[in-house]
Amino acid sequence: MLDIKEQSGLLEPTDVSEYLFTRLYQIGVRSVHGVPGDYNLVSLDYLPRCGLSWVGSVNELNAGYAADGYARVKGISALITTFGVGELSAINAMAGAYSEHIPVVHIVGCPSTIAQRDGMLLHHTLGNGDFNVFANMNAPISAELCKLNNPASIAAQIDHCLRECIIKSRPVYIMLPTDMAQKKVEGLRLRAPLDLSPPSNDPDREDYVVEVILKYLHAARNPIILVDACAVRHGVVEEVHDLVDRTNLPVFVTPMGKGAVNETRPSYGGVYAGEGSSADVKDRVENSDLILSIGAIKSDFNTTGFSYRTSQLNSIDFHSTHIVVRYSEYPGVFMKGVLQKIVQRVDLDQLSTVPGPTVMSGIEENEEPRDVITQKWFWPRISSFLKENDIVVTETGTANFGIWETKFPANVKALSQVLWGSIGWSVGAAQGACLAAKDGEMDSRTLLFVGDGSFQLTCQEVSTMLRHGLKPILFVICNDGFTIERLIHGMDAEYNDIIKWKFTDLVSVFGASEKEARKFQIKTRDELNQLLTNEEFNACPALQFVEVYMPRDDAPKGLVMTAEASARSNAKA
Amino acid sequence: MLDIKEQSGLLEPTDVSEYLFTRLYQIGVRSVHGVPGDYNLVSLDYLPRCGLSWVGSVNELNAGYAADGYARVKGISALITTFGVGELSAINAMAGAYSEHIPVVHIVGCPSTIAQRDGMLLHHTLGNGDFNVFANMNAPISAELCKLNNPASIAAQIDHCLRECIIKSRPVYIMLPTDMAQKKVEGLRLRAPLDLSPPSNDPDREDYVVEVILKYLHAARNPIILVDACAVRHGVVEEVHDLVDRTNLPVFVTPMGKGAVNETRPSYGGVYAGEGSSADVKDRVENSDLILSIGAIKSDFNTTGFSYRTSQLNSIDFHSTHIVVRYSEYPGVFMKGVLQKIVQRVDLDQLSTVPGPTVMSGIEENEEPRDVITQKWFWPRISSFLKENDIVVTETGTANFGIWETKFPANVKALSQVLWGSIGWSVGAAQGACLAAKDGEMDSRTLLFVGDGSFQLTCQEVSTMLRHGLKPILFVICNDGFTIERLIHGMDAEYNDIIKWKFTDLVSVFGASEKEARKFQIKTRDELNQLLTNEEFNACPALQFVEVYMPRDDAPKGLVMTAEASARSNAKA
Ligand SMILES: Cc1ncc(C[n+]2csc(CCOP(=O)(O)OP(=O)(O)O)c2C)c(N)n1
Ligand SMILES: Cc1ncc(C[n+]2csc(CCOP(=O)(O)OP(=O)(O)O)c2C)c(N)n1
Ligand SMILES: [Mg+2]
Ligand SMILES: [Mg+2]
Repeated sequence: MLDIKEQSGLLEPTDVSEYLFTRLYQIGVRSVHGVPGDYNLVSLDYLPRCGLSWVGSVNELNAGYAADGYARVKGISALITTFGVGELSAINAMAGAYSEHIPVVHIVGCPSTIAQRDGMLLHHTLGNGDFNVFANMNAPISAELCKLNNPASIAAQIDHCLRECIIKSRPVYIMLPTDMAQKKVEGLRLRAPLDLSPPSNDPDREDYVVEVILKYLHAARNPIILVDACAVRHGVVEEVHDLVDRTNLPVFVTPMGKGAVNETRPSYGGVYAGEGSSADVKDRVENSDLILSIGAIKSDFNTTGFSYRTSQLNSIDFHSTHIVVRYSEYPGVFMKGVLQKIVQRVDLDQLSTVPGPTVMSGIEENEEPRDVITQKWFWPRISSFLKENDIVVTETGTANFGIWETKFPANVKALSQVLWGSIGWSVGAAQGACLAAKDGEMDSRTLLFVGDGSFQLTCQEVSTMLRHGLKPILFVICNDGFTIERLIHGMDAEYNDIIKWKFTDLVSVFGASEKEARKFQIKTRDELNQLLTNEEFNACPALQFVEVYMPRDDAPKGLVMTAEASARSNAKA
Repeated sequence: MLDIKEQSGLLEPTDVSEYLFTRLYQIGVRSVHGVPGDYNLVSLDYLPRCGLSWVGSVNELNAGYAADGYARVKGISALITTFGVGELSAINAMAGAYSEHIPVVHIVGCPSTIAQRDGMLLHHTLGNGDFNVFANMNAPISAELCKLNNPASIAAQIDHCLRECIIKSRPVYIMLPTDMAQKKVEGLRLRAPLDLSPPSNDPDREDYVVEVILKYLHAARNPIILVDACAVRHGVVEEVHDLVDRTNLPVFVTPMGKGAVNETRPSYGGVYAGEGSSADVKDRVENSDLILSIGAIKSDFNTTGFSYRTSQLNSIDFHSTHIVVRYSEYPGVFMKGVLQKIVQRVDLDQLSTVPGPTVMSGIEENEEPRDVITQKWFWPRISSFLKENDIVVTETGTANFGIWETKFPANVKALSQVLWGSIGWSVGAAQGACLAAKDGEMDSRTLLFVGDGSFQLTCQEVSTMLRHGLKPILFVICNDGFTIERLIHGMDAEYNDIIKWKFTDLVSVFGASEKEARKFQIKTRDELNQLLTNEEFNACPALQFVEVYMPRDDAPKGLVMTAEASARSNAKA
């Protein structure tokens, strides 16, 4: 009898599941998120032997959010769900990852190719024999979509899909039928790592763009650098820092770019968000005659309702797929190579470096001494609590706008979802981020700032944190409901109220002992000061859950202005 | 100045939101499910003045599940979400409603038509200016999809959409832009109720089919009736009962049809599910020479893995869109009229009525007296606890199969999701069902049977129950994880484990006092017997939360057999 090698012509026959998971390991995944279901169970058996551990989230949406957070820290993540019910439960998380440029590999265990061919009336279907319908629903939010239906092409499909995920920095969707999970493919391929290098620019084209940019840069009177989300997502943070170091130009970040720049560098000038910015920042940015805008996503919530007062005539935009110099577009030129050459070739003698504002850290004093914790006091207060390498996750709501006022130590990673803005995301994302830091043996604390309303959507993901012994600090901002929504419409409307929960008791429900989870209720500035300066608290010996009480109608300035703009835009007829 | 009437030519100018909500009220909605978001806030202000109250669920998936449960009891429901983030969070619930034929009106508040036209880079978008992408994702799971972009057609669009929802008994999707919420439409239309009558059959065609059916029915030696889900979904339960009463033919239900037939009628024979049925049921059904199969959905979990041993040659299938007699198809004939005529025209003298098995209620005794609560003991034990008019919600897992063994009093409504099978559904559905019973002033208790694994996915919907003073009984089956999955694959696999929660403490976290929520932990048969016979417990004075402990690897017979069939089908190569 022929053995399988000879039968198949394969040199190193390897099961499909093993091939896929080994590739995931190679590109940096260590923990795989998801929820089991009978169409993916067999493949899950392969995780441990490929060096991967199973997270086992409490539901798929949370698992998707967690995969998003994991990828933001570790550069890649994977999510496994089951056909129909599982994947659709997670689809909002994947849409968020698509919108926000996060590379997540979504693997969906689905019915066997035979059941599909025969159009069997299986559970988790629409009852109409259509086995492609969920893939079609996923298509518009996936950088690549592949159905592993034929062993002859599966290995190549997987390799292609994973490469696209990383290069495009967006989710990909892989359908794995039950009868394919153990089919054999060529394992020899695994010896060669995946080629994950981005397509390189045509050198002539790149040089041309660089010359154009340098011409404007050398001629400018008071140029500045403005760093946005895609600088992080498309991996040019190092180039940005080189540029800042070399030129000493004032550098600002947008809300979505927060954390991309070392805020302790002297030329760091603060957060620019149009009208929502502090006066000196607004002044300096809007009076600059040349803005090097890196990785911009000029969405409403990232610009205080489209309130930039800058001109395209004074802008050079660096993107992952093209460059725009004033109104001239240069398609097919990726910013990375361009930025590297600018760092090398900029002539400092020709460069005019006019300093920007300096960012104060520390507590902004209010007029009267008050006991109550206001948004205005809270966020600057957090500055000195933060440490190098901390991971800071903020939720849509007061937190996402408040964090503008917090000055970061070096190398703080800020995670937020300013464009997609799906509430509940941050709780899952904090789980994923914290786990990624653990998997990567990073010396990082994970801090979550989430509203009481948002927290309720996905609260059970705290249970998963406990399952894996994660030790984040969870700050829940208790302000009696949906403050951000109140500011947009319905200040006293019932629909903006929530039920009051005893938040801190949740950890006991989830089975944590007092040693595994520490709880705090903070209602005054003194209490918060004491907590934030407490050594044990700072050392994160356990999961720590902090209720922070703030007034219902209180909001950071950036939010107040953005909400007004939103309400206006909604009503415009 | 012209007033608005004259300007617009409208006789009774009415705001779009008011028009829509008034229509919802007219067709039976009283409470509207959903989660607010800035693209739907303005429309929410209109709910109270249209007689509707806002539920305010804790997240959109739960809200969708609850709307599903509400519609199953009240015949219709509505769900309001916000663009992108909200609607996609709920899409799995809507897919379930589509799969299971549940009429839910899903209204999505979306950006203004102007923002859409200008392709603005708004929050909750993919950042690509595509405002139709989420509607497209919803299309395959919606019976009708309409975008309210033009005031001139909005009233007609709404009317058409709501009619389709009810006639097709499936979800519809309505996009409501912020700038349309307050536009004026013709309110005069509201005086005429919507025409919700199903399209009537062509009488000649109908008579023809009826004659064919009667011919076979009169000739049959031992005909039976088999009732499945679509008898309920497409509103022929009354006709079925008339048929049973008139003919006295033995009547059986499938798992998805459970509750459709009054089980106290003498001719009720039990649950037929192929191999998973009791021997006498299997015998009687499979040896019948004519099965009147009403509203069948022959899915794997509804047939113990396609294990019917019946022949199409012995079957007449009644569907909502067509009739099949043996192999002859009669398209365009809706079963309702056909059934009515059969009841009128059947000739009892020609009918051969051979009695079927009788269903025992009460506790099936096990060999040895044991203290532990087994699945085999539990489900029959529930029979005598149930009362007329109870609503029984069961979750995918041991509960969905165990309930086969429970005999119902008259008029019990059974809610389950045997085809779609999305776990966590039942917790939301129980909220919706309980609220629908309250809104409809029905004298019904709502009882939920859910697994410990499933409950964790959507636990926070209990908070919404408390918010509205609902008083269901929640039985959580505590058996250390995903028993149904263990039986399919991975009996001892880590991925089938869950974290142990202190389930009953949840209600305190959600702010309930001891009066508002009563808690029970049940570990023995005696404890359960005492609880189930306790008068106060039976009276449902508050929300009641019961942990019922059962062995990890124990499962109802129907599940054991279905799981084996699933594992085989998954592996088949
Ligand atoms: C999934 C989802 N549903 C609904 C919304 C609409 N929404 C945006 S913010 C918000 C309220 C957030 O309230 P909370 O978390 O308490 O924040 P804060 O009070 O600090 O503003 C809501 C409901 C959303 N963004 N995402
Ligand atoms: C949304 C969703 N995710 C995953 C699954 C796969 N699945 C089906 S049943 C089940 C386990 C249910 O466990 P439990 O509720 O404890 O039921 P029991 O132990 O009584 O069988 C899982 C994970 C599913 N059906 N739906
Ligand atoms: Mg809040
Ligand atoms: Mg269980």
